[in-house]
Amino acid sequence: MTTRIAIDCMGGDHGPSVTVPAAIQFLAEHTSANLVLVGQEEVLRPLLGTHASDSRIRIVHASEVVGMDESPALALRNKKDSSMRVAINQVKAGEADACVSAGNTGALMAISRFVLKMLPGIDRPAICAPLPTVKGHTHMLDLGANVDCGPEHLLQFGIMGAMLVAAMEHKDQPTVGILNIGEEEIKGNEVVKAAAELLRASGLNFVGNVEGDGIYKGDADVIVCDGFVGNVALKTSEGLAQMLASSLREEFKRNWLTKLAALIAISVLNNFKRRFDHRRYNGAILLGLKGISVKSHGSADVLAFGNAISRAYDAAENRVLERISSRIAEMMPAAAAVENV
Amino acid sequence: MTTRIAIDCMGGDHGPSVTVPAAIQFLAEHTSANLVLVGQEEVLRPLLGTHASDSRIRIVHASEVVGMDESPALALRNKKDSSMRVAINQVKAGEADACVSAGNTGALMAISRFVLKMLPGIDRPAICAPLPTVKGHTHMLDLGANVDCGPEHLLQFGIMGAMLVAAMEHKDQPTVGILNIGEEEIKGNEVVKAAAELLRASGLNFVGNVEGDGIYKGDADVIVCDGFVGNVALKTSEGLAQMLASSLREEFKRNWLTKLAALIAISVLNNFKRRFDHRRYNGAILLGLKGISVKSHGSADVLAFGNAISRAYDAAENRVLERISSRIAEMMPAAAAVENV
Repeated sequence: MTTRIAIDCMGGDHGPSVTVPAAIQFLAEHTSANLVLVGQEEVLRPLLGTHASDSRIRIVHASEVVGMDESPALALRNKKDSSMRVAINQVKAGEADACVSAGNTGALMAISRFVLKMLPGIDRPAICAPLPTVKGHTHMLDLGANVDCGPEHLLQFGIMGAMLVAAMEHKDQPTVGILNIGEEEIKGNEVVKAAAELLRASGLNFVGNVEGDGIYKGDADVIVCDGFVGNVALKTSEGLAQMLASSLREEFKRNWLTKLAALIAISVLNNFKRRFDHRRYNGAILLGLKGISVKSHGSADVLAFGNAISRAYDAAENRVLERISSRIAEMMPAAAAVENV
Repeated sequence: MTTRIAIDCMGGDHGPSVTVPAAIQFLAEHTSANLVLVGQEEVLRPLLGTHASDSRIRIVHASEVVGMDESPALALRNKKDSSMRVAINQVKAGEADACVSAGNTGALMAISRFVLKMLPGIDRPAICAPLPTVKGHTHMLDLGANVDCGPEHLLQFGIMGAMLVAAMEHKDQPTVGILNIGEEEIKGNEVVKAAAELLRASGLNFVGNVEGDGIYKGDADVIVCDGFVGNVALKTSEGLAQMLASSLREEFKRNWLTKLAALIAISVLNNFKRRFDHRRYNGAILLGLKGISVKSHGSADVLAFGNAISRAYDAAENRVLERISSRIAEMMPAAAAVENV
């Protein structure tokens, strides 16, 4: 079966100059994939060159572009022919199995939610992305969609994250942890404590509290938290990694002796760099919608954007949504029933 | 004038084997300091050797020890003769200008608060510690004392942090930021938005939102957040740094060629390591109390614990509490008036 991915080619800091080459590269590596390239046809076609006639590529024209700093509310209301919206419409219409955009996160959230609607039994979408750990990687959600969550939302995040990992990584019982603070006196706030109770009773493979350092120790396959905390943890990590990388570079550039050392250590340093290359982790899935919508980092290059397309492809191929829906239906038959009325 | 620091010599993972050598070292480097060493006299005296007769050292016996995993409530109720409590009592009684402990954080918080009481105008204590940035360092609070904060608490944290930096680093108008998430759609939760309003109107040098990566970019001298978020940010950073350090080590140990490269790069790697040595940042101040209580990492070694003693000493020397009190009194004359009735 062919899996079809719609790409918002105009989104991101670099637009088509990154998205189109990434799309071409992706097709070369995924022979059973088709792509729907959405954007200004007159811009896309020349960039495609001879690939424009590839039967696996379909160009869908969209006259507008959502700006990186545009208000999500205005983008939702006014830009009905934006490349972002038209790409999402492709999923809604059944013309694509997933969509990818490097555009404005808020707009992608708002438009995805408006167009695709929520899965029955899920109240709010969550942003889920993989992070490297000493053991491999973990999936964390929510990374910024919801600033205030109730316990039942954190439970839903746990179910969605577990089903994502079960589907995409073929793990039967992925471990689920809840992000919390020290084991001393006050173990977390009321919401986290109540959510832990719900998760413990959920039938998921719940391993309890994970502290901040437990994220990178690989304490759980899935870590749930509200979007405020998740976003802070993610961005704090990005900031620390950048600071450490740039000062390691600085130390190696200090004088001719240290530069010589760098030359000798180059392959070691490159291996190290490759291991934690954030581009390999690009592509966050907006979970909880009746369709797969993947957010790429705005500053993604061709390699990074290609990984975001791959993540959308893998999620569609492995039927992540079906897996989430059926688990939710099992756990909350009432929610599913309402939907079927 | 002599500044006197009381040390809970029994606290921490290593107890007197770390705290006593650190104390001796500290005295050698701070000629105008006196120390009150609190703990089991029969244990401390032999470790002090000839220093036992140093006129700048006073040993105060305490028969009990608060365990690292002991419930703070029980430690507060039952261990009235613990080294931790007796050290704090020294501050309360005016026999010491500050105290330091590497013991159980929850117990230190609970006992410090019970014994020392809150400063007028401050509702809750906050844990404040420095973090390295590309520009030098920043101070962040709260790092775990309060899991749920209202806007007025975050305002108080801002005042306390700013006065700490003003006093200890002789900066007239330290910049204050509030930890928040992306600049997109939903800029933080209601508490953070309301706190930002209060901070903007406070007369502090408020620079607005700081995202997670802004911590390490040095976006502000002081960053305020609730204790849940602050603790997650801190521990996440610790976990990431540990993972990166251990995998850099791993890469350099891969084979004889990479080991040779490590040998050649050793001085560069050591410089890098020194720059972010977490031991240099050891010593978190519990702010908001009528006395200075400093928390050292439980696993601190002699160097790290020495830094915690130094931080307590600097805070006392630079009259951090007076600075906070007078600013609070200026801003909230009512609170100070109540206290003076």
